[in-house]
Amino acid sequence: MNETALFTLSYGVYLCTSWDEGRPVGCVANSAMQITSKPATVAVSINRNNYTHRCITETGHFAVTVLAENSDPMLIGKFGFSSSQDTDKFEDTPYRVRGKLPVPDGGLAYLCCKVIGKMETATHTVFLGEVYDCDLIRSGKPMTYAYYHEVLKGKTSVNAPTYRGEEKSDGRTRWVCTVCGYEYDGETPFEELPDDWVCPMCGVGKEYFKKI
Amino acid sequence: MNETALFTLSYGVYLCTSWDEGRPVGCVANSAMQITSKPATVAVSINRNNYTHRCITETGHFAVTVLAENSDPMLIGKFGFSSSQDTDKFEDTPYRVRGKLPVPDGGLAYLCCKVIGKMETATHTVFLGEVYDCDLIRSGKPMTYAYYHEVLKGKTSVNAPTYRGEEKSDGRTRWVCTVCGYEYDGETPFEELPDDWVCPMCGVGKEYFKKI
Repeated sequence: MNETALFTLSYGVYLCTSWDEGRPVGCVANSAMQITSKPATVAVSINRNNYTHRCITETGHFAVTVLAENSDPMLIGKFGFSSSQDTDKFEDTPYRVRGKLPVPDGGLAYLCCKVIGKMETATHTVFLGEVYDCDLIRSGKPMTYAYYHEVLKGKTSVNAPTYRGEEKSDGRTRWVCTVCGYEYDGETPFEELPDDWVCPMCGVGKEYFKKI
Repeated sequence: MNETALFTLSYGVYLCTSWDEGRPVGCVANSAMQITSKPATVAVSINRNNYTHRCITETGHFAVTVLAENSDPMLIGKFGFSSSQDTDKFEDTPYRVRGKLPVPDGGLAYLCCKVIGKMETATHTVFLGEVYDCDLIRSGKPMTYAYYHEVLKGKTSVNAPTYRGEEKSDGRTRWVCTVCGYEYDGETPFEELPDDWVCPMCGVGKEYFKKI
């Protein structure tokens, strides 16, 4: 069985958000899809280890924000590689309340959903949400997971269904962001980057990068 | 509520196949995604009106074939716009039995799954399948639904979760394939195409096109 076959499935890149007793919380999700058109429902797969999972379960509501190719990659670093349990992901993230749910700015579209069903699996819950409010926020091209991975050189959180494990090295020295997993591959050698250079994904400084 | 927001979700294009008492059957699916990595599971959403739905329910097994951008579009016409109940979709479709399931030739990868869970919704069943055999078939770029829709000008079956209803006309004369929904938009006026011209999606002749 060659599990790389699973990498050929196509996904978008989404922020899945909810409330934690009035505090906005959220995480990155790749696994979201429409299930029925009448009524409009979508399913999202969320790891039970995610703090957002608990909040969706308790409130019975979640919003899906669809990211665009030109959405700020720091949104992915912030929402995908830290936990809402000990981080206020919305501290520096402008958002609006739409359909009674927190929707971070910078997305292409949003879908506000009420949980009407769920399916438990080994590690994830598939929440089925009936869409009760949705709209386009601006024009643009939806970010696919392939674009995130190939163009932005983004990595996957270990809690994601699509987590691929550590990727193999070709023997070259590689510099990887310890906060968001971004791998530097610019032409300028990493050591020669200016001191104020920051990770294009999550915004931390050079000191958060490690050589692997 | 602006339901066009749902169109910003990203999908691949897949053939979902199974057996009907020894006869291979299948349909097109857009809604497929990985749910867990250990064990590897995928979920597919299939309309209960699809004949393939009954066969997956009865056998407890399905295969997902991932189509590539350069896969023969006729596969989509054949598998997406007719029913296995009255059509032998595999009659002219070469396939191999992989992991005990029929996998049409021309795909990029296949995943053979055993149903280990399901979630019923208004019109569709979400089947959760544990992947027990999968492999890459060849190299290539996975076809996304956006590519199918924008580049191949493909349409959506009414049974698909992503069905968008009739699209609006801009007032020009349009020629649409009554078998697969393909809309002709070549430079040569449709009336001047040679008599042996066939639909690039599903292979039927000009006589199956109607003016709308």
